[in-house]
Amino acid sequence: MRAMVLRAPLQLEADEVSAPRPDPRHVLVRMTHSGICGTDFKIYSGAIPVSYPRIMGHEMFGEVVETGGAEAVKRGDRVIIDPELYCGECFHCRIGQTHLCPNGLLVGRDTDGGFAEYLNAPASHVYHVPTAIDSQTAPMIQVLTTCVHAQRQIDIVPGESIVVFGLGVTGQLHVQLAKARGASPVIGVTRSPEKRALAESLGADLTIPGGEGAIDRVRDATEGRGADVVIETTGVLLSVASAVKMARSGGRVLLFGIITAEEGALPFYDLYFKELALINSRVAKSEDYPSAIALVQRGALRLEPLVSDVMPLGELKAAIGMLGSTSGPRMKIILDHG
Amino acid sequence: MRAMVLRAPLQLEADEVSAPRPDPRHVLVRMTHSGICGTDFKIYSGAIPVSYPRIMGHEMFGEVVETGGAEAVKRGDRVIIDPELYCGECFHCRIGQTHLCPNGLLVGRDTDGGFAEYLNAPASHVYHVPTAIDSQTAPMIQVLTTCVHAQRQIDIVPGESIVVFGLGVTGQLHVQLAKARGASPVIGVTRSPEKRALAESLGADLTIPGGEGAIDRVRDATEGRGADVVIETTGVLLSVASAVKMARSGGRVLLFGIITAEEGALPFYDLYFKELALINSRVAKSEDYPSAIALVQRGALRLEPLVSDVMPLGELKAAIGMLGSTSGPRMKIILDHG
Amino acid sequence: MRAMVLRAPLQLEADEVSAPRPDPRHVLVRMTHSGICGTDFKIYSGAIPVSYPRIMGHEMFGEVVETGGAEAVKRGDRVIIDPELYCGECFHCRIGQTHLCPNGLLVGRDTDGGFAEYLNAPASHVYHVPTAIDSQTAPMIQVLTTCVHAQRQIDIVPGESIVVFGLGVTGQLHVQLAKARGASPVIGVTRSPEKRALAESLGADLTIPGGEGAIDRVRDATEGRGADVVIETTGVLLSVASAVKMARSGGRVLLFGIITAEEGALPFYDLYFKELALINSRVAKSEDYPSAIALVQRGALRLEPLVSDVMPLGELKAAIGMLGSTSGPRMKIILDHG
Amino acid sequence: MRAMVLRAPLQLEADEVSAPRPDPRHVLVRMTHSGICGTDFKIYSGAIPVSYPRIMGHEMFGEVVETGGAEAVKRGDRVIIDPELYCGECFHCRIGQTHLCPNGLLVGRDTDGGFAEYLNAPASHVYHVPTAIDSQTAPMIQVLTTCVHAQRQIDIVPGESIVVFGLGVTGQLHVQLAKARGASPVIGVTRSPEKRALAESLGADLTIPGGEGAIDRVRDATEGRGADVVIETTGVLLSVASAVKMARSGGRVLLFGIITAEEGALPFYDLYFKELALINSRVAKSEDYPSAIALVQRGALRLEPLVSDVMPLGELKAAIGMLGSTSGPRMKIILDHG
Repeated sequence: MRAMVLRAPLQLEADEVSAPRPDPRHVLVRMTHSGICGTDFKIYSGAIPVSYPRIMGHEMFGEVVETGGAEAVKRGDRVIIDPELYCGECFHCRIGQTHLCPNGLLVGRDTDGGFAEYLNAPASHVYHVPTAIDSQTAPMIQVLTTCVHAQRQIDIVPGESIVVFGLGVTGQLHVQLAKARGASPVIGVTRSPEKRALAESLGADLTIPGGEGAIDRVRDATEGRGADVVIETTGVLLSVASAVKMARSGGRVLLFGIITAEEGALPFYDLYFKELALINSRVAKSEDYPSAIALVQRGALRLEPLVSDVMPLGELKAAIGMLGSTSGPRMKIILDHG
Repeated sequence: MRAMVLRAPLQLEADEVSAPRPDPRHVLVRMTHSGICGTDFKIYSGAIPVSYPRIMGHEMFGEVVETGGAEAVKRGDRVIIDPELYCGECFHCRIGQTHLCPNGLLVGRDTDGGFAEYLNAPASHVYHVPTAIDSQTAPMIQVLTTCVHAQRQIDIVPGESIVVFGLGVTGQLHVQLAKARGASPVIGVTRSPEKRALAESLGADLTIPGGEGAIDRVRDATEGRGADVVIETTGVLLSVASAVKMARSGGRVLLFGIITAEEGALPFYDLYFKELALINSRVAKSEDYPSAIALVQRGALRLEPLVSDVMPLGELKAAIGMLGSTSGPRMKIILDHG
Repeated sequence: MRAMVLRAPLQLEADEVSAPRPDPRHVLVRMTHSGICGTDFKIYSGAIPVSYPRIMGHEMFGEVVETGGAEAVKRGDRVIIDPELYCGECFHCRIGQTHLCPNGLLVGRDTDGGFAEYLNAPASHVYHVPTAIDSQTAPMIQVLTTCVHAQRQIDIVPGESIVVFGLGVTGQLHVQLAKARGASPVIGVTRSPEKRALAESLGADLTIPGGEGAIDRVRDATEGRGADVVIETTGVLLSVASAVKMARSGGRVLLFGIITAEEGALPFYDLYFKELALINSRVAKSEDYPSAIALVQRGALRLEPLVSDVMPLGELKAAIGMLGSTSGPRMKIILDHG
Repeated sequence: MRAMVLRAPLQLEADEVSAPRPDPRHVLVRMTHSGICGTDFKIYSGAIPVSYPRIMGHEMFGEVVETGGAEAVKRGDRVIIDPELYCGECFHCRIGQTHLCPNGLLVGRDTDGGFAEYLNAPASHVYHVPTAIDSQTAPMIQVLTTCVHAQRQIDIVPGESIVVFGLGVTGQLHVQLAKARGASPVIGVTRSPEKRALAESLGADLTIPGGEGAIDRVRDATEGRGADVVIETTGVLLSVASAVKMARSGGRVLLFGIITAEEGALPFYDLYFKELALINSRVAKSEDYPSAIALVQRGALRLEPLVSDVMPLGELKAAIGMLGSTSGPRMKIILDHG
């Protein structure tokens, strides 16, 4: 089959490889669309080392070719694939934290992924996608599951205020998800005027630029108290500090962005005085897939405005390159496998 | 002041009584609008005995005349009043279950209520109502708080399916609240075509008549599984049994309607086999007022379609009589104090 | 291998059958001890029909003979086996409710079970048992998991009062588990003086006979309020009604016993007025196994006082017969496979 | 009445002041015992400025002299007093977060406190103490409430492992509370051999010195995984970093110690990768008093081993001085009002 093969960092090329063979309890999927993620860029650049050759890609959509005896799907079904594999036997799997399985593997990083003609996936990891969902945006449901998983960890009473800090793809999803849960006002924070406009078109009640006055503006929009919930998606420590300051006393702060800095200033006393919790979230669980699919199917969230580019699979290299460039606000790039 | 005084069961008349005097930490409110509730009918008819004379009315809206030193409101503020008084010293009050206080009093039943020119309320029980909320519908926020309180007791993941059994005023509020929380589909069940039409205009994804086929239709609308959540608002045991059958395995059943029958058939084995919880809810807590106000203020719920009649306070007797009549689908009656 | 084979209802005999063969990701276990459960009696009597011939037994303990490549255990490990198999592909499995899987199978009912020399179990269902746990009582850990699963569904703040209604094997486990969680007082209710004495020796702060005065006695022991939590283990509707009356306003009622009656009297108005939830629980999840093992390992619960009889596997028929007899209070019967 | 009056920082002296007069809904208490807290030291030294003259003291125990019409207590009752006053009218009070009331006052800091002959407290803030609880240790129940409040924010399944970092008075209480909830093993961490010995005598399963090897030792004691829960009581950022490293993937970290440093190193990536939540806790709510009283009454926790010194009220100045000294491990100092 045709696949995009990474032979070493930066050495990515289209090639013919042997197609996966049907396995029992595995579903063979002909991939038709996939999404590119920051993780793909890191694998491509070598920042995340993998064993080579490797086929990347973990935001995947396609059509069932063989069911391997699985009953959940049938031939011809349109499906997405949960890329998080787990062992099923360790402590974490047994207590239901499969997403934290120490033996876990990510399809497209630790095993061959979706930038190819076919993929063989465990039946338990394949989800039927209703016709109401567009093929081109379907790979983004995987991204949405990580937002659903994160927001499961914060209760929201309808009418509560939420700040979303950072309005990239996941920030825009968090804005929409918060609206779908009845949060109000939902306030987006970013420097980019384009992203603010996008968030407002997707339902944000208010957007504000980051920086100096942002904390005051959040307070103004929340009767002087600060937001009930702040979702931080940038991973920048300075933003985390602002997020803490934006939260009201007794509120909640969800850290969705991955913080890589190991040292820096945080208003720890505020955490105590306002009795806040810094809640972290990582990837998703299988329970998040039915939820994410239902949300998109019923129109509670819109994915297509988050697609900035659709390119053929063969142009993967160019597409990944765009992720690294700084020209203009780019959202999700979708690959059409043609 | 002018007030509607109940001197004995069925003996209700307009009269002049002495107005309440301002107390410290109490807010004197000039009542402008109030709502009538089934409880008022029961007090009027004598089914709920009270000490006479009594001024009824616990769905209340008005304007602050004196603040009694309270800082939360100021003269001229438009306000609603939480009618559930509690002692603050008992076990239940101390553990935060003020709504279950054994010494609790209901304004309009155990103390004089809102069918009058003035009411004096503890500052802690008075809530400022933003101008975005219409005066005429504001008394219904008290009703909404009981729905918010109930739905707090069931987590909803957006995209989950909810059945609301019974589409009277509270059923219509539950439908809207479920939609505001991202539930989908929200399915209303009632015999009345008018109430079904109303629920659909307020956002219900589907409505179905009760009776024979209802359980199957719910199953059809939920991929054969049954609903994630069923909210029962009628209090009829037969409907509770249907509600249990409509819930999916691992779902939740919220009993909002008050069951008065003491004996009858319930599918108890289903409760076990589907591992359901029968969750009951009673009145509301102060925490539900800010939420209910925010929801109405931001347009997440609409109250005015639930008002079927607006009448002058002086016609209270006729209005209460309408509650007992059976002609046609009647929703909330609002009294304009003129 | 040697096994106890049920050829038809009431036709149970020792026989030679072919031993299970090692499968990949399956662990072959040489069974050394097993427990008998009411379900076994129902299968034996034909009340629960199965496909014949069938080897019963789902409370199982033994030693690993082959690991089938599984890494969680090694040859010679002492293990228990979770008998609840699930498909892993259905909606319930994907949302983490594996115990409600509609395709689920019970080992010893739907597949051959533990009353045999060997059993082959999925690696994910095999749990290592530390040496601190006695072989003879180890099969009862499966029973304990169902109690752990049930009590997960009720939060307990240490110092809260708990009534356990019914003091059979599961009642005695619930008493101990409640004590381990800091509940106080823990009050056991049963007619049997022997079971009351046993519960007291296992930590119950108070035990009382059922019947007339029980509700008052619970109230006396809880400052007049009723218990914070009531756990009902008998499944008798009359006891459920008492359980509701024993719970304090704002408390919780856990229905652990399976109610088979379809009709009867319940104090529904109390459910509303006290804002209670009737919480049901069914079987257990894999997350309950590490917890149950840790509790027994650390001495937080004692299982051996709950063993009333130890008999050789060959006497299974006689042992099952004892379950049906009415002479005296009998707790758990353990089979020693010799 | 006789009282210890702080006239300015460091100027503390016994004096005659006018006794508080009975107020409606206030309970007049003759103080018999009180505890000294780090906050008292900060007020005394001027680090926490107050309005002078001020009577300090917020860990209080005494006997009811006048009930002010309150029904919860009667003359002669032995009582403790919740020192956290709140306004009852603000947003936080209305949503049940009274402990975060922005208008809140601390008795003994913002109003006159318990280092005196009499105190007048709102009836809602006075708790009856059963005879099973010793007068001398009763003031410490206020400290225990802050631990109960904190541990309410972390669910514990019995059999889970807990590390308590820092074994001062609150650390020793957390150890005992964790044991009472069924946690096992409970591991205490401190440099002080005396505190370790004390923790072990109070039920800690294991204690280890802080520093280099501590993280490894926690891992060894938890099957290589790290602890399910870590409670940090020191407020030292370096310890917080260790606490994060000691927690297992998917575990929880409770920050009980107040962090005053504004800058420093934390393993943020670990927070993400292990999907941890940093949960903060501040003071207590009224719901924590019945729980704390029940726990001590029933012997689930022992307070008297935490009392290192009992001194007459008149020696308050010397007692406070001992808090600042560094000689030896000192736990709680109780003042006997004689």
